[in-house]
Amino acid sequence: MAPVTAVERDVRSVGAFEFACGESVSDLRLAYEAYGEFTGDNAVLVCHALTGSQNVAPLGDSGEGQAGQARAWWGDVVGPGKSLDTGDYYVVCVNVPGSCYGSSGPPATNPATGDPYGTDFPPVTVRDWTRAQRVLLDELGVGRLHAVVGGSVGGMNALDWAVAFPDDVRRVIPVAAAARLDPQCLALDAVARRAITTDPDWRGGDYYRADDGPTEGLSVARQIGHVMYLSKDSMDRKFGRRAAGRDAQMSFPADRTASYFPYREVESYLDYQAERFVERFDANAYLYLTRAMDDYDLSAEYGTDAGALAAFEGELLLISFTGDWHFTVEESEAVAAAARDTEVPTAHHVVSSDHGHDAFLVEPGKVGPPIRDFLADGVAGRAVTDTADGDENRPRRRQPAAGRLERIGPRYRP
Amino acid sequence: MAPVTAVERDVRSVGAFEFACGESVSDLRLAYEAYGEFTGDNAVLVCHALTGSQNVAPLGDSGEGQAGQARAWWGDVVGPGKSLDTGDYYVVCVNVPGSCYGSSGPPATNPATGDPYGTDFPPVTVRDWTRAQRVLLDELGVGRLHAVVGGSVGGMNALDWAVAFPDDVRRVIPVAAAARLDPQCLALDAVARRAITTDPDWRGGDYYRADDGPTEGLSVARQIGHVMYLSKDSMDRKFGRRAAGRDAQMSFPADRTASYFPYREVESYLDYQAERFVERFDANAYLYLTRAMDDYDLSAEYGTDAGALAAFEGELLLISFTGDWHFTVEESEAVAAAARDTEVPTAHHVVSSDHGHDAFLVEPGKVGPPIRDFLADGVAGRAVTDTADGDENRPRRRQPAAGRLERIGPRYRP
Repeated sequence: MAPVTAVERDVRSVGAFEFACGESVSDLRLAYEAYGEFTGDNAVLVCHALTGSQNVAPLGDSGEGQAGQARAWWGDVVGPGKSLDTGDYYVVCVNVPGSCYGSSGPPATNPATGDPYGTDFPPVTVRDWTRAQRVLLDELGVGRLHAVVGGSVGGMNALDWAVAFPDDVRRVIPVAAAARLDPQCLALDAVARRAITTDPDWRGGDYYRADDGPTEGLSVARQIGHVMYLSKDSMDRKFGRRAAGRDAQMSFPADRTASYFPYREVESYLDYQAERFVERFDANAYLYLTRAMDDYDLSAEYGTDAGALAAFEGELLLISFTGDWHFTVEESEAVAAAARDTEVPTAHHVVSSDHGHDAFLVEPGKVGPPIRDFLADGVAGRAVTDTADGDENRPRRRQPAAGRLERIGPRYRP
Repeated sequence: MAPVTAVERDVRSVGAFEFACGESVSDLRLAYEAYGEFTGDNAVLVCHALTGSQNVAPLGDSGEGQAGQARAWWGDVVGPGKSLDTGDYYVVCVNVPGSCYGSSGPPATNPATGDPYGTDFPPVTVRDWTRAQRVLLDELGVGRLHAVVGGSVGGMNALDWAVAFPDDVRRVIPVAAAARLDPQCLALDAVARRAITTDPDWRGGDYYRADDGPTEGLSVARQIGHVMYLSKDSMDRKFGRRAAGRDAQMSFPADRTASYFPYREVESYLDYQAERFVERFDANAYLYLTRAMDDYDLSAEYGTDAGALAAFEGELLLISFTGDWHFTVEESEAVAAAARDTEVPTAHHVVSSDHGHDAFLVEPGKVGPPIRDFLADGVAGRAVTDTADGDENRPRRRQPAAGRLERIGPRYRP
């Protein structure tokens, strides 16, 4: 992949910050990256997913490859000549507070004590992320955004922009997201957290000076999540019931019967991925960020999803995936229906994919074009489809109401 | 519920037993219960699920209520006047080797040492269960079975009877089962095992004399399983996103942010169920039995599912549930297709239910009638439906081939 031009990569101290819970930190630090040239009306905020970082696209000078969602996690979608073209747009991504890629969070140093915050760090919410992103954008001189785009809980973050700062963003693109987690996902997140907090090496969250943290609990938590992101079909195709090669070895204690039964490819894959994950992610951050995700509810403060979106003056593109059982097509459709109810120009673009929730990361050829065309032309964009098309009984909202939206932003380049 | 008559409840020593792995125990002990009167041709073997016990129906004298799958787990289906009527049938259920309800398994005493077997117990397979059941039935004087019925991995056990002892059973009813686990289920079982074996209190499986076993790991394992048994719809209806009452308290260490966010009903329910579960189930047994389930493959030894069923002379009723994402309708249909290929009189009865995998336990009104009528009249039973009905291109196999099956067994009583 070609390196992006004009990269900014920095950590900004933005001063005191009060979280939704009422607690504050004296100096919030926000790690971010920005790509492309800011022209005044071309800023696009990208919101990362649960374990993602601010490194959306590959950096030319780093030589770093893709590593889970830690590095260049959307390099096939964002970059020069890509669908989210950094030759056209000024793309900014901020590591959310509570995470562990340089922004303030449990593993970061508390300037008041010189020690890691640990669980003294205030609980965070998606709204806190949105407000922190607003502060950072102010620092960068970005007022109104052309667009906010994000996948998974990053899509919730994007949706929250339409609620928290309805006048500040023209186009919002939640990808593989939902108005709120369903109880099945709430349950699995809770089990994942329990795996972490009952690992004796978690030590009540105070493990930063210990020899090791709760790597086993975090591994189990990650593996639960990982299965949620895949689909039965993609796992069937990728692994089947095949045994792993002779060299594959479990990295943790196993029962004696393990020597009689095969160590399967699917286990070996998940174990390998968990090993990589615990190297790059902090256990407390996992607790904090899943709490924020579980807590998110589009309708909070407004009673209904439509009420929450009522003040939004921009356009909305929802993208969902047929094989996603974590954030389903139906959940995106419910958001689309609420947005249509409140006259927001809306398109719900359903991608046929058996890749599960991970499709937003691994199907750039299907995700890129509708994003590209929506950024350029809104819901009228050529590659943008809508579930409401073909339904005679439902008003077609593909064309924005006259005078309601300025047609600003880079022109469409095929 | 009315007590059943003529209950036998015993543990039999059946002598030396060699397992499929090649290892043996000097004296296999099998705990079983039997209900009703044996008339020579009315024996029905019930196979319990992963964490089930031999106590299928409530015992009149015990005063015990239902407790998970430990006690009276199919009391709404099996009993006097129930669909599997113990007034008609002699119903036997055997606790499978490797389990923990009285049969030989990791927590049972090894007669050679006087100590618990622990992980010295040989690895077990579903075939070992089938062979042990055969031995126990011989002890009870039961030759040919009228039927074998089982749910979940008990359905795999039932299916295995058609392969291991094809002449010994007239009617086989796998409920909510499959020819083999798909990689998604394999993955979740592996994560569950990892949660147990990485709990320091597991101590390599040698925890029976310690103050406590791996209750935290087993809790997480159970919760992963529990979510697999429910459906999104049933969880939505049962819990939504509601917060649990003020009295609800987590029973394990939690992160500090837990005090800011609600403890939800779905979490409280799963935590409560896990607490009950660790009281009744052994962690090593969980490892052993999930290994057996993961290992099960109908086609093993034969190459194809149809090949495995080729020698079966009886009739087959598969029951599946629309809301079951653990063992799907499609997986039961694949077994039905294989059975039809090999001329086994087969019906695949699909139950519309949003209860997920648990439907086989909690939908007695939908599960009972097809079982009752299939036991009486085979695939021609009145309440038995078949997915092949209405498909003009597929030969209808609802009527057994003339002379192929004796019409033995208790007459149908509406």
